Order: sequence, then C-alpha cells, then structure tokens
Amino acid sequence: MHTDFSKYRDLIEKRLSEFLKEETERSRYSTAAGKYPYSLFDPLNYIMSCGGKRIRPILVMLSCEAFGGNAEIALDAAIAVEILHNFTLVHDDIMDNADTRRGKVTIHKKWNVNAAILVGDELIGLSYRSLLRTKTDKIAGVVKAFTDGVIEVCEGQALDKEFETGVDVTPEDYIIMIRKKTAELLRTSSVMGAIIGNADESGIRSISDYSENIGLAFQIQDDQLDVIADENEFGKKIGGDIIEKKKTYLYLKALEILKGKDKDDFMYLYNSDPAGDDKIREIISIYNDVCVIESARSEIKRYTGIANSSLDCISSPEARRKLEMFSRMLLNRNF
Amino acid sequence: MHTDFSKYRDLIEKRLSEFLKEETERSRYSTAAGKYPYSLFDPLNYIMSCGGKRIRPILVMLSCEAFGGNAEIALDAAIAVEILHNFTLVHDDIMDNADTRRGKVTIHKKWNVNAAILVGDELIGLSYRSLLRTKTDKIAGVVKAFTDGVIEVCEGQALDKEFETGVDVTPEDYIIMIRKKTAELLRTSSVMGAIIGNADESGIRSISDYSENIGLAFQIQDDQLDVIADENEFGKKIGGDIIEKKKTYLYLKALEILKGKDKDDFMYLYNSDPAGDDKIREIISIYNDVCVIESARSEIKRYTGIANSSLDCISSPEARRKLEMFSRMLLNRNF
Repeated sequence: MHTDFSKYRDLIEKRLSEFLKEETERSRYSTAAGKYPYSLFDPLNYIMSCGGKRIRPILVMLSCEAFGGNAEIALDAAIAVEILHNFTLVHDDIMDNADTRRGKVTIHKKWNVNAAILVGDELIGLSYRSLLRTKTDKIAGVVKAFTDGVIEVCEGQALDKEFETGVDVTPEDYIIMIRKKTAELLRTSSVMGAIIGNADESGIRSISDYSENIGLAFQIQDDQLDVIADENEFGKKIGGDIIEKKKTYLYLKALEILKGKDKDDFMYLYNSDPAGDDKIREIISIYNDVCVIESARSEIKRYTGIANSSLDCISSPEARRKLEMFSRMLLNRNF
Repeated sequence: MHTDFSKYRDLIEKRLSEFLKEETERSRYSTAAGKYPYSLFDPLNYIMSCGGKRIRPILVMLSCEAFGGNAEIALDAAIAVEILHNFTLVHDDIMDNADTRRGKVTIHKKWNVNAAILVGDELIGLSYRSLLRTKTDKIAGVVKAFTDGVIEVCEGQALDKEFETGVDVTPEDYIIMIRKKTAELLRTSSVMGAIIGNADESGIRSISDYSENIGLAFQIQDDQLDVIADENEFGKKIGGDIIEKKKTYLYLKALEILKGKDKDDFMYLYNSDPAGDDKIREIISIYNDVCVIESARSEIKRYTGIANSSLDCISSPEARRKLEMFSRMLLNRNF
C-alpha cells in the first residue's frame, strides 16, 4: 500500500481529466470554425488543472472501501466532489478578493468577475453530471447527500462573510460556520462513499462523525496557517484572514483571553482599516503573546482524537488504518 | 378550466412559499439570538417573491398531465425549475449590469455583488433539494434532465456574453446560443414533467420538440420586446440589448439585409461606445427601416407553428389544447 494515497490520486486525476476533456469537446458548437464557449472552458480547465491535494475525492474512495465497496465504483462521485470543491474556490476567491490560489492567479483576476461567476456555476452543473454516472441503486441518497453539501457550503460562506463585519460573533457561531463552510463537504464526501459502499446506518453515522471532526480540525489549522505558514508553500498571502477581518479561531480565542483595555484595543485594531503589513505584524505579535497558536494546535489535536475514535465501529483494521493515515496526511501540512 | 392557468399558479405559489419558509427557518443557527444567514436569505426571499409568470413550473405540470400523470406529483420538480430559473436571473443580472428586474432593484444593486453570487449558488442547491422530493421511481432520469438544463443554461449565458464582443457571430451561432440560454430550460421543464407523468420515449421527444421551439420563439420575442416594449410593463430599460451590444435576432437580421457602406456603418455604430439614448434611437430607426421587427414577428410565428405541430402525437385533445394555450399565453405578451 502506498502511504501517500498515490494509487487513489492517480485514478482521480485520470478520471477527472477524461471527464473535462469530454465536456470541453462536447461544448464545441461549430466544428468548422472551432468555436466553443472559450470564456467558460478556458478558465474552467485552468482551475481544474491547478492541482490541489484532491483530499475530498480520496475520502470518498476510502469511505467506500471502508465498508467493503470497490473504490473505483465511487470514482465518478469522487471527482464530483472535487469539481464542486473547485466551484467553492472560484466563487469564494471573488468574494474574498483573493489574488492567488495554489500559487497561481485567481480566475477573476486573470480573466474577470463575470467569467469566474459563470465558471463556478458550470462547475456545479458538471459536478452533478459526473455524480449521476455513479452505478449504484442508491443514487437518490447519494445525490441528496451531495445536495446537502452544496447548500451547507453556501450558507457557511455567507456566515463567513457576515462575520467579517460582525462584532457579536461567538465561539459557538464560529464552530457552526466552519462546520458548514469546511467540515460539511468532507462529511458529504465520506457519506457518499459509504452509501456507495453499501454501509448501514450506523456505519454512515460513524464515518460522518469522523469526517466532520476532521473537517473542524482542518479549518482551525487553516486559520493557524494563515499566520504561520510559508507564503510560497501556502500559495496565498500570509495574514489574508486579518486583512479580511475574518473571525478566526485565533481571533475569538484571543478575545477570550484578553481582558479590559487590552481586549478593547485588540478588537478595535483587528476591525480597523486599512490592513497593512504593520497591522498584520501587530496582530500576530498579540497572538504570540496570548499563545493562541498553541491553543489552536491543541484544539486540532482534540478534534482529530474525536474523529479517529469515531472509527472504532468500522470492522476492517486495514480501513481504519487508512482513514487514520488520511487524518495524518490532512493535518500534517505546513501549507 | 381557468384559461389563465391560475389553478397551477396557485399551487406553485403555495408550494414555493412553504418551501422557502421552511428553508429560511432551517437556516437559523442561534434561536436565542435569532441569528440566520441574513445576507443570504433576505435577498433570496426578496427575489423569489418578486413575482414572475412562473411559466416553467406551469410547463412541468402541463407536461406531466399531458401523459396522464397527476400534475401535483410534479409540483416539487416544478418549483425546482422556478428556483433554478431565478438563479440564472440573479447571476445574469450581475453580468449584464442590470439595475432592475421585474421593475424592482436587482440584488447586486440593492445588496452587493457578493450577496448576489451567493444567492444564486444557494438557489441551485435549493432547486436540487426540492427536485429530490419528487415521488417517482424515475428520479435518476429527472435529475439528469435537470442537470443538463443547468449546464446548457450556463453555456448559453457564456456564449451570450462572448458574442457581445464578437464580430463573427453567425445566425447559426445565435440559434445555438438562444437554444442553450433560453429554450433549454423550457425543454428541461417539459421533459421532467413528461418523465414524472410516465411518458414513453416518443412522448418525451414530442414534448421536448414542442418546448424547445416555443423557447426559441420566446427568446426572439424577448429580443423584439427590448426595442418595442413598454418600459414600465417590461420591467427593464428599453434598448438594454443595444447598450450591452447583444447579438440579437434583430441585429443579425439587419446585418443580413443591409449592404455595403450601410452595413459597415450599422455594424460600427452598434459596436461603438458609449451607448446613449441617441445611439439607441438611431439603431431602432434602422431596425424600422429594414423591417427586422416584422421579420422577428414572422420567425416567432414559424417556431410556434413547429412547436404546436409537435403536439400531434399527444393523444389527449384536452392536453393538446392546454399546451397550445400555454404557447399563446407565453407569446401574447407585451412585456
């Protein structure tokens, strides 16, 4: 067994590139003049080939296998989730004014906002098209789980944006937001895989708990990496969350620790304009003073522990081991 | 029988408002503080209650009945298409810089572009959620038809935008574009209704041909109304297509008729900046000189004829009569 999931990743890349090639060809409407909706398919193929760790499709496949299913049967559903994930990236980057993603210029910057809107929309449609190719007699349940994911991820993004200008965001609100924005699509991935792998109700519940908690850990880590990551490896600017006044784990934890004038000053600074390098440095220095980066680290550990213990009722030791390895792969990153 | 389809419309409005109320309530994440993703659900409920003729859901129900199905079984699928249609309006209005829609301020103007992007995305998710409630053993086919609609409508919009800056748009390209952008969602509506109503292959083909041709007629009429409609009734600014340099039926037909310097001058004027009231008046005056508004009228008639003759193999005279009435309702409009 490859410890880096390259077997899965290769299958995913192959199916994904076949699917996108087929769809791009299908879109040609005038073969003689070589016409196709270039403003849509050029940026679409650009974003889809920008790499990414393909963690969601790997999770679909592992979850299918965990219940004795053949992972390749879940391949169309796996790439569906990856396509859907890329929709969220394209639209989120518009809303977050992001210039780069995975070290490459974002679509709305390289092309324009209209192109980016439409690419995201098309990706949703294509994700369902791939999903519907899955050979299973439980397709209705699979599509339902996927649709829940689409809705939750939109609502999570809405909350994330609302919280930027919000002053009454609680730690509970934060968890609800990241559950929707980040954990839900991982949960969806695992639930779909489990359904395709013929898991029973209790199996679906276990893998759902596993992936949701991994997702929470993953987002808290993302918040943490925003201030400690290597800019080149992270593929985006350090302090991006501070610039956007995101209500991150670090911000909310710092608010909890700071008292009196320190708290007021911190809150005022964080929510003030403009956000230059000075402000970013100052915020990070406060984070270091109150040790919230360590708090984040232990919170990530806590959620990962809950996740891994949710795997107890999965009978195959091999499947459990792979999923634990998946947690490690996901959370041992510095970008 | 009500000749205005008010029986269907009432059922649609009721189911739609129940569904949206339920979803808005579901989104509350802190009952104590009354918190919900307001930046998403406020504009979402605004656009969905802005009226509209609900023609697509009516077509779903009529198509179901045409093959002996109970129209109410198709109600969840019917409102799904209406929700999806509203997604296209919200995103298209951003791309087309539209200030008003159905006489009301557009979401990206009343709120902002980010809100409008996210509302559109959420509407896609909700449309699938409603669709999946349909009680039929053919749900996979229904979801597939719906997904084809999502993809085609995105590609149609991409072509529409590309054509704005294109100079080599042919009449054939135009038909392909409006088929995707406008006719496809009507086709999807009727195909879904037919599947739910247990139509056979040939029945599905007939109703598909019917609605596609009605859709082409409908878009050519929309192009025509852009220059002849009453601004208040139309709900948007006259000459909007001219401002956006849309390659409409009128423009392409005028190009076909004009020769030599007249053609060059017209082409130059149409594609020049800026588009003020003078330019709009001048273009409309050329349209009148070369009688393209009459050409559009006869083309609308031609497509409507093809549509209605596609109904020949539908056995119920009552169903045929209703669908012919639907064509008339759709095409006897001055807004």
